Amino acid sequence: MPLTPEQQAEINEARATPRPTLRAVSEGMEARLHHAIPVLDHGLIRVIDYMGDDAAIVQAARVSYGRGTKAVSNDEGLIRYLMRHWHSTPFEMCEVKLHVKLPVFVARQWIRHRTANVNEYSARYSILDREFYIPAPEQLAAQSTVNNQGRGAALEGEEAQRVLDILRADSTRAYDHYEAMMAPTQADGTPQQGLARELARMNLPANVYTQWYWKTDLHNLFHFLRLRADPHAQYEIRVYAEAMCQIVRDWVPLAYAAFEDYRLGGAVLSAKGVEVLKRRLAGEAVTQESSGMSKGEWREFEGVWG
Amino acid sequence: MPLTPEQQAEINEARATPRPTLRAVSEGMEARLHHAIPVLDHGLIRVIDYMGDDAAIVQAARVSYGRGTKAVSNDEGLIRYLMRHWHSTPFEMCEVKLHVKLPVFVARQWIRHRTANVNEYSARYSILDREFYIPAPEQLAAQSTVNNQGRGAALEGEEAQRVLDILRADSTRAYDHYEAMMAPTQADGTPQQGLARELARMNLPANVYTQWYWKTDLHNLFHFLRLRADPHAQYEIRVYAEAMCQIVRDWVPLAYAAFEDYRLGGAVLSAKGVEVLKRRLAGEAVTQESSGMSKGEWREFEGVWG
Amino acid sequence: MPLTPEQQAEINEARATPRPTLRAVSEGMEARLHHAIPVLDHGLIRVIDYMGDDAAIVQAARVSYGRGTKAVSNDEGLIRYLMRHWHSTPFEMCEVKLHVKLPVFVARQWIRHRTANVNEYSARYSILDREFYIPAPEQLAAQSTVNNQGRGAALEGEEAQRVLDILRADSTRAYDHYEAMMAPTQADGTPQQGLARELARMNLPANVYTQWYWKTDLHNLFHFLRLRADPHAQYEIRVYAEAMCQIVRDWVPLAYAAFEDYRLGGAVLSAKGVEVLKRRLAGEAVTQESSGMSKGEWREFEGVWG
Amino acid sequence: MPLTPEQQAEINEARATPRPTLRAVSEGMEARLHHAIPVLDHGLIRVIDYMGDDAAIVQAARVSYGRGTKAVSNDEGLIRYLMRHWHSTPFEMCEVKLHVKLPVFVARQWIRHRTANVNEYSARYSILDREFYIPAPEQLAAQSTVNNQGRGAALEGEEAQRVLDILRADSTRAYDHYEAMMAPTQADGTPQQGLARELARMNLPANVYTQWYWKTDLHNLFHFLRLRADPHAQYEIRVYAEAMCQIVRDWVPLAYAAFEDYRLGGAVLSAKGVEVLKRRLAGEAVTQESSGMSKGEWREFEGVWG
Repeated sequence: MPLTPEQQAEINEARATPRPTLRAVSEGMEARLHHAIPVLDHGLIRVIDYMGDDAAIVQAARVSYGRGTKAVSNDEGLIRYLMRHWHSTPFEMCEVKLHVKLPVFVARQWIRHRTANVNEYSARYSILDREFYIPAPEQLAAQSTVNNQGRGAALEGEEAQRVLDILRADSTRAYDHYEAMMAPTQADGTPQQGLARELARMNLPANVYTQWYWKTDLHNLFHFLRLRADPHAQYEIRVYAEAMCQIVRDWVPLAYAAFEDYRLGGAVLSAKGVEVLKRRLAGEAVTQESSGMSKGEWREFEGVWG
Repeated sequence: MPLTPEQQAEINEARATPRPTLRAVSEGMEARLHHAIPVLDHGLIRVIDYMGDDAAIVQAARVSYGRGTKAVSNDEGLIRYLMRHWHSTPFEMCEVKLHVKLPVFVARQWIRHRTANVNEYSARYSILDREFYIPAPEQLAAQSTVNNQGRGAALEGEEAQRVLDILRADSTRAYDHYEAMMAPTQADGTPQQGLARELARMNLPANVYTQWYWKTDLHNLFHFLRLRADPHAQYEIRVYAEAMCQIVRDWVPLAYAAFEDYRLGGAVLSAKGVEVLKRRLAGEAVTQESSGMSKGEWREFEGVWG
Repeated sequence: MPLTPEQQAEINEARATPRPTLRAVSEGMEARLHHAIPVLDHGLIRVIDYMGDDAAIVQAARVSYGRGTKAVSNDEGLIRYLMRHWHSTPFEMCEVKLHVKLPVFVARQWIRHRTANVNEYSARYSILDREFYIPAPEQLAAQSTVNNQGRGAALEGEEAQRVLDILRADSTRAYDHYEAMMAPTQADGTPQQGLARELARMNLPANVYTQWYWKTDLHNLFHFLRLRADPHAQYEIRVYAEAMCQIVRDWVPLAYAAFEDYRLGGAVLSAKGVEVLKRRLAGEAVTQESSGMSKGEWREFEGVWG
Repeated sequence: MPLTPEQQAEINEARATPRPTLRAVSEGMEARLHHAIPVLDHGLIRVIDYMGDDAAIVQAARVSYGRGTKAVSNDEGLIRYLMRHWHSTPFEMCEVKLHVKLPVFVARQWIRHRTANVNEYSARYSILDREFYIPAPEQLAAQSTVNNQGRGAALEGEEAQRVLDILRADSTRAYDHYEAMMAPTQADGTPQQGLARELARMNLPANVYTQWYWKTDLHNLFHFLRLRADPHAQYEIRVYAEAMCQIVRDWVPLAYAAFEDYRLGGAVLSAKGVEVLKRRLAGEAVTQESSGMSKGEWREFEGVWG
């Protein structure tokens, strides 16, 4: 459970006094504001601020299409039309700002999504907390034997224990040394100069937790979620993406439903894939050899279509 | 005056019913929301939505600098420190969405600022209104004789009248033809096919008005304002920038004051410029020849320093 | 034909003297460098510079995946894998710089793709040429009656002639007035002040030609081509996209083939679409009513799948 | 020395066979291509590819300003004019691709510059090498007592030794455990499942080396260098920035000279700073109290102006 009493008090205070606004308001998001969703063993996600709602997407689209959009009967239909036809700019009109606490190795994947604004806790300026991600036993997975970047079954028995012992001991020792190097005195009280924070941090492993404010628009958030809420994403970032899916569903329910239908639950076919499906629909039994696909492509194709 | 009774009614409705929110609220911005600021003869700017306030900038900075920022005594000092040291990410945590109506030739300059989200009225999809920018007489300027991209004195007398007559007549004729080409019948009622809107629009001149929703963060907005609220910017975009300066001053007064001091009112010196000033401070009389600057640089340098 | 003898001489000179380089070289692109491909009546596209080739994509991917990529037997297979799995960063390692001459209304669509570098001819600084896009008769299309942003059949007979007459006459008159307003003398030789270029340009219609240098990476170029080489794109921008497809095919033949298979020729299915196809494959006759799709979605679905 | 014989052989091969090209060629850059510049104890920077040269900047500017640029007599003057007036787009027409090997904590600062393309070695996919940054004794600095994010004097004697011992021992142990957790057998040969690479990497500290291909345009590179070649930047990233300065000087000597004069060696003044200098030039003795600046601002101002 990642929240201290101080943090909970801060959240309560932030939620105590609603103020009037003339902006678009999403009731689903107001219910979430400032609350923390726990993720992994010490991580969290919480909404700090947002801009826009489903109606704001529609409003922006109607600016673009002008009188022409009168034909589309309702907001849901228009939002689905925009999603289906890759009209991304109306979705960019919504924005969200999140507070995220996450292990450094997850942060390194996350930051590769460049179209976002970030303020990260600076270990050059301040001292990191003693918090490290230690996987739950069921997530302590072996290397996949078929996929270079995947996991196989969970480690068993003694091996699992050995790994957990290593991760815990190395994290503890690294943090002890981090503190000792920066301290104004040695353990016995002898004064020392104390290593610069910007150097001492290099001793901390990638499972140490960092935190940041992360702000992005809904279009780019959907792009992030499509890649990171995917079963092929690493578990430790996927759980953050899944928590964000819950948030977005409450924020812009129509847009999220369209995203689920057209992106998360949909499928992309190559020209060859279209051809094979058409032959199958016409009653032909197509094999990998006659498909024109490589073995890898065929395996992935069969994964969806049988 | 660019607002129709329908538009004013829409604004009144949007402002009629405040709703409670748990987000950061800027009172200065609430007072501006939805109201239209007239710009040029038919243009406008109005705030549709915003995210964050001065306190949100400070909050983001404190996430980055952690406990280290406790030393800075107050919000104003911290915001000035961030601006002075080009720490741009906390300013990116504020966002604004504007509705802008502007001539196409201004829109073409504006869109060159790429870090923004835009939904523009589509002349492919819908029909543009009969509204054209005709400069006020005092803005009908001659080509500058010293600056390839600048204006000289206002045209006088008959010449000014000739130009206004041309602009008005050509705009009117272009729009008449635009309508006539798309119409389902000829002037005498004979049916015709009607040219596609996406083609007919090519007959409209660059002073026709378009409109868009434009959304950007405060850091990028400051960058825009530094270039476009500058005396060297073309008058027709500068008036939009100046209207936005008013908006930003009400939205984030501390950040705007820092921007005014460090960017709008400040000066950038080259290494040579620093050297010349130091020599002058030491009592030396420096000339263009002894400055190491070209004539153009020296003229600009003297423009600031005498 | 858009090239003057001076321009052709410039191209010949640029191609006259090959120089040795240690960089990646694409023979297909060397053959294209500096040559102009005519587009529309006065437009053109030509390659000014490029960085990288198919091998550079592979090289970047192998940096990312390290020893793990040894399993993939060849470059073509790896490039197809990257494209299939939306691994976009290796494609970003190739860059191209184009010189494009295009009508302003096409430029206005084009510039909406923000991830590119642009240097456009400045009508604030210099005087535009007297060149206007006048559609060929077969492109002079009526407004579509089923699609708000589409074209129907070509205009016929007298109506086509009327439209061409309007476009030609209005362009000519607009340019005559543009020149007259800026001129140092009136037609009869009487001196006048001359309107500033930055103002005179507002009289020019959107079919006037402009030109720019446009530079982007291969990933973003593919995104542009997917949207603009699509049959739903407006004809006047699609012809530029098609010319660029030819260029890219010669530049990076493996990447282009993967792009054609997975993007241009492929299909995207919603979750509902996947479900309908699976039911069909299982022998069921699915109707719009039983599909769960709206009429619009069903029409588009049948457009691909019958 | 970071290069293995295999790597050196690869470089030699890449440099062995120049090929003819019709593109812009920078001789200074050709001399650098593929060669590695050593940085820190195991890091490196090398140029993999580039696009454009000083003449390409000029060419792009002349497209923008058209006939108007004829007045500017030479390339150097035009490039200085562009830099002085923040006309950034012509500099965006040059592009460079670098291979960089760097410690993870440096990579985490570096990646905050978002306008670049990156392919990083994937520790999810492959196994990192046993290479860790251990500071040279003179870089083992104490925390600054006046600056929260700075360094003071180098640690002395036994304290320096203790810190080096910790960093070395923790790195070695972390890597031993990293390997042991992934291994197919325990130390005594007993088979085990082997932890997934994407998990094992979390045990590695931030001084482990990673590597990437990094590609950016010259304008954004200058922005990076202005911030990271600055004395306030952390030493470990500054040495990379300084190596890049050498590269850019050879690549585009005129642009680099303008950058040095107007950015690296220049100074930015606030409105208050301009006012103080003008008062001083007029003979007045201005103090912090009469300057209107805070103590911090005044200290920085005096740092430049005495």
